[in-house]
Formats: sequence, C-alpha cells, structure tokens
Amino acid sequence: MKGKFVVVEGLEGAGKSSALNLINTLIQAQGIDVVNTREPGGTPMAEAIRECVKGDWATENVTVEAELLLMYASRVQLVENVIKPALNEGAWVVGDRHDLSSQAYQGGGREIPDTILKPLQEITLKGFKPDLTLYLDIAPELGLERARGRGELDRIERAGLAFFERTRQRYLDLAMHDSSIVTIDASQPMEKVHADISEAITRYLQSHV
Amino acid sequence: MKGKFVVVEGLEGAGKSSALNLINTLIQAQGIDVVNTREPGGTPMAEAIRECVKGDWATENVTVEAELLLMYASRVQLVENVIKPALNEGAWVVGDRHDLSSQAYQGGGREIPDTILKPLQEITLKGFKPDLTLYLDIAPELGLERARGRGELDRIERAGLAFFERTRQRYLDLAMHDSSIVTIDASQPMEKVHADISEAITRYLQSHV
Repeated sequence: MKGKFVVVEGLEGAGKSSALNLINTLIQAQGIDVVNTREPGGTPMAEAIRECVKGDWATENVTVEAELLLMYASRVQLVENVIKPALNEGAWVVGDRHDLSSQAYQGGGREIPDTILKPLQEITLKGFKPDLTLYLDIAPELGLERARGRGELDRIERAGLAFFERTRQRYLDLAMHDSSIVTIDASQPMEKVHADISEAITRYLQSHV
Repeated sequence: MKGKFVVVEGLEGAGKSSALNLINTLIQAQGIDVVNTREPGGTPMAEAIRECVKGDWATENVTVEAELLLMYASRVQLVENVIKPALNEGAWVVGDRHDLSSQAYQGGGREIPDTILKPLQEITLKGFKPDLTLYLDIAPELGLERARGRGELDRIERAGLAFFERTRQRYLDLAMHDSSIVTIDASQPMEKVHADISEAITRYLQSHV
C-alpha cells in the first residue's frame, strides 16, 4: 500500500487528542493527504457498533466476550471500508486507537487470554497492522484525573484503577517487544511531550517519504 | 440446568413463527413456564446489535467477518443474560434460531470456514447447546416465495438463491450428524407439518418431564 498507517494509543487522559492534531499537522506539512479514524467507530456501521459497546445497558451484564467481538466487528469494517482504501490511494491514515487497544484493554485490563484474542485478530486483520504507533504512557491515576476533568466517564472508563494498571502494563509489555511502537512519556510537561512526538514523527517521515 | 432449551431453525418462509406458537402451547400444556427468545437479539444490547447486523448500510461494504462477530456478540449476551438464567430457574426456553443459524448461514451460505467458526463458538458458548432443535426444511425457492409474500426482505434475506441453497445444504448436513436435531419436512401441507412438530415435541416431553 502506498500510504502509511500511524496510530496513537494510550489510556484515557494521556493526551491523545492534542497528539493527533500535532501529527496531522506534521504529516500534512509534507504535502501528504491525511485521513483520520477513531476506534471503535469510523464508518456508519462501526459507529452504531460503538454505541452498542459504549452503552450502559443498565438491565443486563455486558459480557467481556461480547465487548471483545464488537471491538473487532467495528475494526474490520473500518479497516476494509476506510483504512485500506485510503492507504491504497496514497493517503496516510492517522488513527485514534487500533488493535493495540484491544490487546491492552481487553487482553490486559479484562484479562482475556491470547488463545481468544489471537484467533479474532487473525479472522479480522489477517496480518494487517499499523506502520507506526505512538503509545502515550501515563499512570492511570494521573490520566483518569485529567479525563474526569473533561466530564463524565463512560462504562469502560469507570472500570476501576486495577483495570487500568493492568491495561498500562500490557501496553508497556507490547511496546517493549515491537519496534514499530514508540513509547512517549506523557506525564512530562505538554511542550516536552509534543517535542518527543514531533521528533518521532519527523524521524519516521524522513526515512519513509 | 433444570429447564430445557428448544430451538426452531430454518430458512425464511419455512414456517418458524407458527411452529414456535405450537411448541409454546404444547410445553405450557404440561404446566411448564416458557421463555421465548429470538436471534440475533433478545436483550436490549443484543437488539441494538441486531439493528447493526440487519441494517442496509448503503455506503459501506458489510464484511462477512463483522456480520459473524455481531451474530456471536448478540448470542453471548442472550445466553448469559436470558437463556441460562431461565433454564436455571426451571423454565423451558423456546428459541427462534440459535447457533445452528450461524453455522448454516455464515458457514454454509457465506462459506466461512470452520477454522473461523469453531474458535468463535468456543469463545462465546463454551460447549453450551440446545437440548432439542427442530429444523424446518424447505427448498429456498418455496421459502423465499412465502417470505416475499409477507413484505420486504432484509439485507441478508436478499443474498440470492445460491446463498440459500448452500445454507440449506449445511442445515441438512449438520442435522444428519447430530441426534439432537429433528428435521421436519416443511414443504408438506401445514396440518402435516404441525402434526410432525407435535409428535417430536410430545415425544421429547414424555422422555424429559
């Protein structure tokens, strides 16, 4: 594929939104078209699936299995209908979350074993993965404090500190073993975080454009 | 579990609705509580998933993988929130479709291989299966003609005759190898179909109540 798929990952409150804006600007400055995506969601059907998975469903227990299947159903719709077509046309896709979120939140946080996660990845992604991932690392206490400052947390975001600690640990473990994932210390002052992001993106652009 | 799970399966227009009414009546006549379910759907979240999977989504390609994952997400919500609790309380659950539909429609009709279907079954059902299934067998031409008479067909129901022929063949193959599935010839006159259903249900009730 002609374009590149760049993803921003991290816990709630890690600063994904301003990172995404900065990355868009840096890539567009090279004259490259950027398509932005978010997960879950990003197509009409995937947004409807997002409503299912983010919903409160007060009268029923949302099983970890259903949550996981909905994440992958949304993902395959987005990959096949938006991400791959954009990359084939030469655009770069800048994504707010992708498969690493399922591995971290559902695998780490919800403790779903790889024997369940791996078959789903194979069924839906068939080896497709981001070219570059920036993982914004932050302690859950700090991230959730920032996220709370923005308003109500959703069903998944209310899962409790131990859940987010397991999620962070899985992010860190996965980043350590995958050279396409760059870990950014998101607890630093904003200017320093943005400088680190700029450096990572600029380095990638220099070697891939 | 104290109750029994009885499922009606078959192509569109096979006569599932009137079969379900008859089965309810026969079981309730024994003083047994009946809980009715339908798939996809049957809980608030599963009904929202049903809307996703049955929708037209004119602007995007609905992938076979997303369709399949949504079917299983709906199923696990229904099994854990409705079917198992009802069976544990001693009710009998009478279902309009269950996992055999995914095997027939997605496995047979959509030609999704067992290497994909089996892991999803294991993840979501963990060995749970109906006690008795009545498969109403009908040629697709006849079933679709009846279904068309009732009004508009949905996205899946418009998939074409070859799709339904593969689906029917898979139903027949699976029924042949599973003694818990009773095949009813649904092309017979309604009175004869109902007599066959009554006989199968009465025989099951006599040996299990």
